[in-house]
Amino acid sequence: MQGKIALEEHFALPETLEDSRGFFPDTIWDELRARLLDIQDRRLREMDENGIELMILSLNAPTIQAIADPAAARELARRANDYLAEEVAKRPDRFRGFAALPLQDPAFAAEEMERCVRDLGFVGALVNGFSQVGDEATVTYYDGAEYRPFWRTVEALGVPFYLHPRNPLLPHARIFQGHEWLMGPTWAFGQETAVHALRLIGSGLFDDCPKLQFILGHMGEGLPFSMWRIDNRNRWMDLPPTYRARRLIGDYFRENFHLTTSGNFRTPALADAIAEIGVDRIMFSTDWPFENVDHAANWFDAAEISDADRRKIGRDNARALFGIE
Amino acid sequence: MQGKIALEEHFALPETLEDSRGFFPDTIWDELRARLLDIQDRRLREMDENGIELMILSLNAPTIQAIADPAAARELARRANDYLAEEVAKRPDRFRGFAALPLQDPAFAAEEMERCVRDLGFVGALVNGFSQVGDEATVTYYDGAEYRPFWRTVEALGVPFYLHPRNPLLPHARIFQGHEWLMGPTWAFGQETAVHALRLIGSGLFDDCPKLQFILGHMGEGLPFSMWRIDNRNRWMDLPPTYRARRLIGDYFRENFHLTTSGNFRTPALADAIAEIGVDRIMFSTDWPFENVDHAANWFDAAEISDADRRKIGRDNARALFGIE
Amino acid sequence: MQGKIALEEHFALPETLEDSRGFFPDTIWDELRARLLDIQDRRLREMDENGIELMILSLNAPTIQAIADPAAARELARRANDYLAEEVAKRPDRFRGFAALPLQDPAFAAEEMERCVRDLGFVGALVNGFSQVGDEATVTYYDGAEYRPFWRTVEALGVPFYLHPRNPLLPHARIFQGHEWLMGPTWAFGQETAVHALRLIGSGLFDDCPKLQFILGHMGEGLPFSMWRIDNRNRWMDLPPTYRARRLIGDYFRENFHLTTSGNFRTPALADAIAEIGVDRIMFSTDWPFENVDHAANWFDAAEISDADRRKIGRDNARALFGIE
Amino acid sequence: MQGKIALEEHFALPETLEDSRGFFPDTIWDELRARLLDIQDRRLREMDENGIELMILSLNAPTIQAIADPAAARELARRANDYLAEEVAKRPDRFRGFAALPLQDPAFAAEEMERCVRDLGFVGALVNGFSQVGDEATVTYYDGAEYRPFWRTVEALGVPFYLHPRNPLLPHARIFQGHEWLMGPTWAFGQETAVHALRLIGSGLFDDCPKLQFILGHMGEGLPFSMWRIDNRNRWMDLPPTYRARRLIGDYFRENFHLTTSGNFRTPALADAIAEIGVDRIMFSTDWPFENVDHAANWFDAAEISDADRRKIGRDNARALFGIE
Ligand SMILES: [Zn+2]
Ligand SMILES: [Zn+2]
Ligand SMILES: [Zn+2]
Ligand SMILES: [Zn+2]
Repeated sequence: MQGKIALEEHFALPETLEDSRGFFPDTIWDELRARLLDIQDRRLREMDENGIELMILSLNAPTIQAIADPAAARELARRANDYLAEEVAKRPDRFRGFAALPLQDPAFAAEEMERCVRDLGFVGALVNGFSQVGDEATVTYYDGAEYRPFWRTVEALGVPFYLHPRNPLLPHARIFQGHEWLMGPTWAFGQETAVHALRLIGSGLFDDCPKLQFILGHMGEGLPFSMWRIDNRNRWMDLPPTYRARRLIGDYFRENFHLTTSGNFRTPALADAIAEIGVDRIMFSTDWPFENVDHAANWFDAAEISDADRRKIGRDNARALFGIE
Repeated sequence: MQGKIALEEHFALPETLEDSRGFFPDTIWDELRARLLDIQDRRLREMDENGIELMILSLNAPTIQAIADPAAARELARRANDYLAEEVAKRPDRFRGFAALPLQDPAFAAEEMERCVRDLGFVGALVNGFSQVGDEATVTYYDGAEYRPFWRTVEALGVPFYLHPRNPLLPHARIFQGHEWLMGPTWAFGQETAVHALRLIGSGLFDDCPKLQFILGHMGEGLPFSMWRIDNRNRWMDLPPTYRARRLIGDYFRENFHLTTSGNFRTPALADAIAEIGVDRIMFSTDWPFENVDHAANWFDAAEISDADRRKIGRDNARALFGIE
Repeated sequence: MQGKIALEEHFALPETLEDSRGFFPDTIWDELRARLLDIQDRRLREMDENGIELMILSLNAPTIQAIADPAAARELARRANDYLAEEVAKRPDRFRGFAALPLQDPAFAAEEMERCVRDLGFVGALVNGFSQVGDEATVTYYDGAEYRPFWRTVEALGVPFYLHPRNPLLPHARIFQGHEWLMGPTWAFGQETAVHALRLIGSGLFDDCPKLQFILGHMGEGLPFSMWRIDNRNRWMDLPPTYRARRLIGDYFRENFHLTTSGNFRTPALADAIAEIGVDRIMFSTDWPFENVDHAANWFDAAEISDADRRKIGRDNARALFGIE
Repeated sequence: MQGKIALEEHFALPETLEDSRGFFPDTIWDELRARLLDIQDRRLREMDENGIELMILSLNAPTIQAIADPAAARELARRANDYLAEEVAKRPDRFRGFAALPLQDPAFAAEEMERCVRDLGFVGALVNGFSQVGDEATVTYYDGAEYRPFWRTVEALGVPFYLHPRNPLLPHARIFQGHEWLMGPTWAFGQETAVHALRLIGSGLFDDCPKLQFILGHMGEGLPFSMWRIDNRNRWMDLPPTYRARRLIGDYFRENFHLTTSGNFRTPALADAIAEIGVDRIMFSTDWPFENVDHAANWFDAAEISDADRRKIGRDNARALFGIE
């Protein structure tokens, strides 16, 4: 399919490269580093070869969220956003930008969000899970009351918020200790991000901000498979919910969330996601450079869905959500 | 469908009742308690009314696994198994038993497993996740080297092992702190059990015990949706696995695991499970008394699968796995 | 689901009743006759009880199409349309109308189509397959050149055309002779209607009238299952098509056709239709009074699709296609 | 997938080549002729390159069935069967045979069936729809009483019968006249074969011969999509069937039929077939040389089904049905 739009597509600044270093052998790291630093060259070739007209770009993970010093987080976020705006300006026909936001400081994050949308023309934000704030062991999720003004700003700006994965801190998630192979995209990314999303829903965020729209990658981080059970376990008991939100969790999921295919190129998972959230809320993405553009595109272009659905997921849903003509 | 076999079906002893107490209001608790204590009366009526010929019974959760004193755990396990054997003997045409096992003491657990299968005629074991051992804060998962002899015993007996959920301890899973509505079947059960299963696989258990067969409830605790990504994330990197097992995680999942429908009565999730693990490895179950038998049966009997698949999932797969005529 | 719109919903005039007589025993016939003659009473109750806000009504089959005398066909069509307009006017909040058209006389049919849309406010036409013209054994399908002006009129009016089944004449379809149990909805309806649709596509009709929109009932009369093979048989031969149309048959199917669920309440067939034509081109219908409204609605309301898709199929797609507010 | 078995795989004798001539341009015909005449050379290479261990071979269509002179039909069938037996004997590790049968003469056909199974080691028969007998315009389907002894022979031999498509005679199927592009695999093959199968079921054949097993190609010739409607149309009327068989049509379909994937390489159709008839009754096939082996295998090997199902469809179901070790 030609004309695809992809929206979980990362780049790095030289100073954020190390965040993607992992334990890769040198051969992998050389390649990954080159992919992360490039925007205008190989990336465009990959897009051209794989029918991608537009990428919405975002800084790599966890970067801003892992900087415990709020001032440093603020400074880096601004710099990353300015850099991204310049790069997008070189090819406005091929790129758009997501803001990096220092949610260690919700008031500043709201300001930066406004600046990014109004002055830099960004189409939303992408944030890598919880923030460490003050010291490395202190984490903050965004369901707390202190984040409501930030969310109202995002809602008022009318742009979506991409909740991107990061790993839990090992002391906070003991089941992974000694089993670090489960970290990252293998498993921990999904668990961490799904629960963060559920905490946000349960907090009543979407009662307060009913128009706020979130995006989750990786076909919904496992939520489509489990959403029925979340709302239907122990059904005969007919118990009132013990979370703060007013409706079923799935109601918010179906009205305030969108999913992308990033890093999850499996048709039964796509079918499951369509059955849960509807085809209008699913969008193509690759997760470049951690996944290959051709792996994503070859799968998607041939996936056994209707061409009408392919056009929506591949392009039209993103156009509608981001107001792209 | 008549003649169904169900295998995640719980009962309680008076002394294990409190493990299921939760924060239920009294009306719920009165009903739940009565359901848990009953075996020969209402349970059989529910089975008759919903086309269930046979239930394989198991003690409620977490019970044995939450008894930090190994001697007490051993004693209760034996007592529960003896009681269950007596109850099964009253209606061998309608019931079978799963052993409760004090895995705080793997050597004793292996002995008790042998006793249950050889002397009591049980068809397998059902264990509620990790065990607390010595003190409440010390937990043990079963992927460690000290459990290999136990697993060899299970493999040699040729009976399956049902890994049933329990909640993580809150200090070990900080993301749930202050968000206890996510505990239990809503979310934490699945995360806890899925990761325990992945740890077992990654440990090379099924290289050592290639014939060992596990069962997971709740349509696989989220694993079918994510198994592709577990084995395919960052595929271009073509990195060797950092776990000990020799093959892909999904290879073991498809050869050493079976799933049940307990508490997950959603056809797209079933379709996803079939796509991942194949219809021969899925079995009907209800999760009585936490779920209603009629909720399970009404859904299953009408689910949009072929009647051939319905017979397998509803009955024939269990007959083959447990050697039930 | 409340607010559904249904669009293959039939009524009879006293003089067209016999067309639905079939070989039904008297008990069935008494009930069916009463259902066919009723519009304002039981029909509305069925709609209320099953969440149907609006029915688009059409004359029973084959009626007009089986009147070999064009003058008689013209006269009955006008009368049926006038009668339907009066009935719709009594409850414009609950009913709309499809024109009955005497395609024995394409020029008159075009005029009548215009009158029905412009003067009577009808939202399209529903025609029961081929017409007999002049004598009973002479049949005319609508792919011939003599029908192009009629189709241009329909296209210009911007309303869809529902191609409804009728039985083939037995001398023309010898395989059914002596096996009349295969006639009607059991099999022959689908074969007859699918091939008529394919003939229309192959004739190049949609090259001449690219905006013309057809509707097929019964989940597409078998076409979704076979459309891939229609366009892909003997693919290595890469043979040019021997029909007149310029593109693949499936291209027209996906751009010029809509399907309804009438009389085909099976979720795998719906899934197949969605995979072929996309969810935006499928609409709920019942085929009352030949099928029960509750059979259709109970199935549809519980079918394992996303609620977003349910709203589209149940209501929004019809609103968009027919311009219903 | 390695080790696949394929069972709708055709060859021609020099004297049956013309039956496959069609209206192909010379380039196509040269290639098709070479493919049809080859057994031991290119065919084996195609099999090797595409993971096919075994092909069950059958004569091209319509051949025997289109020879109105019974003596000539008998003679050619015997000759074709002898030739096939010789070819199979050259590579018994790679080939098996289906008998060609002159059903113009049911008594002789029964004898020849016995000879083929007992003396030549064939694993079943493949017959191309109705036979012309006596003159070209006289056709005979196999639901008539005169065929019951033949069917009892097939049942007693315990081998399946593959009902392969042929085109209807145009005077018998007027809807195709002037629209010959619909003949063959495009549409008419499916209609003809599906109705022949339905006539056989409706005749009560499977009440008389309950163990008789049929095979249909092309994912069931459209029957999976429509089987629900065949048995459920006008359900409120609860009318007794007007065919002779004692049970629902679908009951026989699910117990006496198997399907192959020949020429229908579309995953949603496969999913639909699985939902209707169950995965144990579906087998891989290509329809060589009319379809490409690689088109079939590349699709099948990557189709989004479980590997367990892939092994069944690709190999194990055929092994069980044909008793292949
Ligand atoms: Zn990413
Ligand atoms: Zn349970
Ligand atoms: Zn109708
Ligand atoms: Zn063939």
